[in-house]
Amino acid sequence: MQETTRLAGLIQERIGDTLARHRQALEPLGRDAEPLLDEALGFLSGGKRFRAQFAALGYRAVRPLDMSARVDGELAAVLDAACALEFFHAAALIHDDVIDRSGTRRGRPAVHRLFAALHRQHDWRGDPEHFGLAGAILLGDLLQSWADELLQNACDALPDRGAAGRARRHFNRMRSEVAVGQYLDVLEEQQSVFAPHTEQLERSTRVLVYKSAKYSVEAPLLIGAALAGADEGQEQSLADFGLPIGVAFQLRDDLLGVFGDEEVTGKPAGDDLAEGKRTVLVTLAREHLPPTQRRIFDDLLGGDLEREQVSILQRTIRESGAVDRVEQMISRNVDRATDALRRAPIRPDSAEMLGRLAERATRRSS
Amino acid sequence: MQETTRLAGLIQERIGDTLARHRQALEPLGRDAEPLLDEALGFLSGGKRFRAQFAALGYRAVRPLDMSARVDGELAAVLDAACALEFFHAAALIHDDVIDRSGTRRGRPAVHRLFAALHRQHDWRGDPEHFGLAGAILLGDLLQSWADELLQNACDALPDRGAAGRARRHFNRMRSEVAVGQYLDVLEEQQSVFAPHTEQLERSTRVLVYKSAKYSVEAPLLIGAALAGADEGQEQSLADFGLPIGVAFQLRDDLLGVFGDEEVTGKPAGDDLAEGKRTVLVTLAREHLPPTQRRIFDDLLGGDLEREQVSILQRTIRESGAVDRVEQMISRNVDRATDALRRAPIRPDSAEMLGRLAERATRRSS
Repeated sequence: MQETTRLAGLIQERIGDTLARHRQALEPLGRDAEPLLDEALGFLSGGKRFRAQFAALGYRAVRPLDMSARVDGELAAVLDAACALEFFHAAALIHDDVIDRSGTRRGRPAVHRLFAALHRQHDWRGDPEHFGLAGAILLGDLLQSWADELLQNACDALPDRGAAGRARRHFNRMRSEVAVGQYLDVLEEQQSVFAPHTEQLERSTRVLVYKSAKYSVEAPLLIGAALAGADEGQEQSLADFGLPIGVAFQLRDDLLGVFGDEEVTGKPAGDDLAEGKRTVLVTLAREHLPPTQRRIFDDLLGGDLEREQVSILQRTIRESGAVDRVEQMISRNVDRATDALRRAPIRPDSAEMLGRLAERATRRSS
Repeated sequence: MQETTRLAGLIQERIGDTLARHRQALEPLGRDAEPLLDEALGFLSGGKRFRAQFAALGYRAVRPLDMSARVDGELAAVLDAACALEFFHAAALIHDDVIDRSGTRRGRPAVHRLFAALHRQHDWRGDPEHFGLAGAILLGDLLQSWADELLQNACDALPDRGAAGRARRHFNRMRSEVAVGQYLDVLEEQQSVFAPHTEQLERSTRVLVYKSAKYSVEAPLLIGAALAGADEGQEQSLADFGLPIGVAFQLRDDLLGVFGDEEVTGKPAGDDLAEGKRTVLVTLAREHLPPTQRRIFDDLLGGDLEREQVSILQRTIRESGAVDRVEQMISRNVDRATDALRRAPIRPDSAEMLGRLAERATRRSS
């Protein structure tokens, strides 16, 4: 646990140092650019840091890493790779919140809201919301390029060119898949009717896998492991562990998106319901509803919901048995992952830490 | 000229091959993702390709490059770097058009409009405009990451690690500066009054330099030259040439944004006026206007303009003498660049080609 705390601290420091370096480099552009840096720091001070931790543990699965050492050389490179994932994730979330019209993130107003507030505070001309949109798009773009720069730094600092190339390929695949996965997610919300159950479940699962499961666990693990020079067998085992943990992670997120406590998740209760997300949970809930109830369910989903209506949807989902089924799916995926981890040809101490991190990622309440 | 045509053809082919590769990699995500690839190809089939050409010529300023050779090894790497700039530029324009609410680009509807049209065509649920926004944000994100991947490919394919590192630093600086420059540009439009003339000119010039001048010419040149292993003297000369050409390029753009022929520019006439852009041209025009006329000018700028009102603003700008002053600035910058080019320690044949490309970039009508 001490190691986990140390890692979290090192990552936060590295994020701070990286942003300070960019702030300095951008000084010639004047003080007007500062809100971009301020919002970046604010946003990156929160979050659960699962991706950074999976990346660092992916590295340690293959090579020992002294985390009490001075931060340079190898440790600095691993931290840069871990931070790259946090920067990329921040960029993706900032754009997602615009796309999903989410007003809250990590217990604070979403970035587009913060820029809109800046506009109002200065009583500027034009539409505050549109300025908010512009600020969020541009900050996301900046963070995306800084993520990439951090990964380059990590790759450059390590001597093994082949390993660096493999890490980058994982990073590149992840970026493409998460953007396309997000597009497919948005596309789902535009469909006026649900597809027949089997097809709908396939579609919901596809979004879950590409937009989240691979991205949250498997890709960070593989990026870290590749940087450490993992062989094919090690990468395959980490993928066999990472994908089911990622699936369980997102299924947990689906549950939290419907039943989560606002105080703990930092997002409004029933957020996914108002957004009309066709999650696996929702798809399973609809399967066994009688036609009339299903029609009411579909009509409510994705609308402007009163607290009462959120409760109706929550109750319907729970009574459909979908919550239990999703909990079972989570357990099965965790079991499968645990099994893969046990047989993985990786360093035993990191396997133990990975198991604990996976537990936290799939049993969490925020 | 034959070489230029050959280069343009090679770049188009490389863009097509790159997108085909991504299309294949994304096949497991299903056919629903195809519109992203289709719009990418549509967008990247147009454009003037100045950045790609400056990058290729930056390389050739330092090392000979046989453009009639088979496309592999060195030539492939240079083409990847050149395409990286086109992909990045496409990403930036797609996001810019959302931010600037531009409906037209390269003679076609802007990408957010195309996704909105797709929504309408399928009679999907929800707001077509918001779906258009989502599609444009995500396609921009994808293209930005593919740009980065192309530059990595270029860097990996060349043997000189130091050169690759320098090229990437130029690329990274460019990305940061252009996003922040765009933010400053948007910020200008939110100000309810113009700053006093000297300060306003400084602000308009800052946006011109960072959002456009460095990005359009200097950065591509330096990325190409660095990849070829340019020494400090060569990079400095190319910057001394590139920055004034970039300034002249953008000043030309300012003129076209007010006086350009829609048929040739692919953007509506007087587009910059409706967007309320505080360009150097506009700032110079206001300087000598009598107070009453200036008030009318300011009131019209950035509003919903009738054709008649566009004409009034155009006439006012012309009669203020600002057009002549901007033309003089363009000439002075071109002279300064030509002078730097003459003294530059670079390969003579590419210096000649650079001169011709610079001429086209600063004298163009589209």
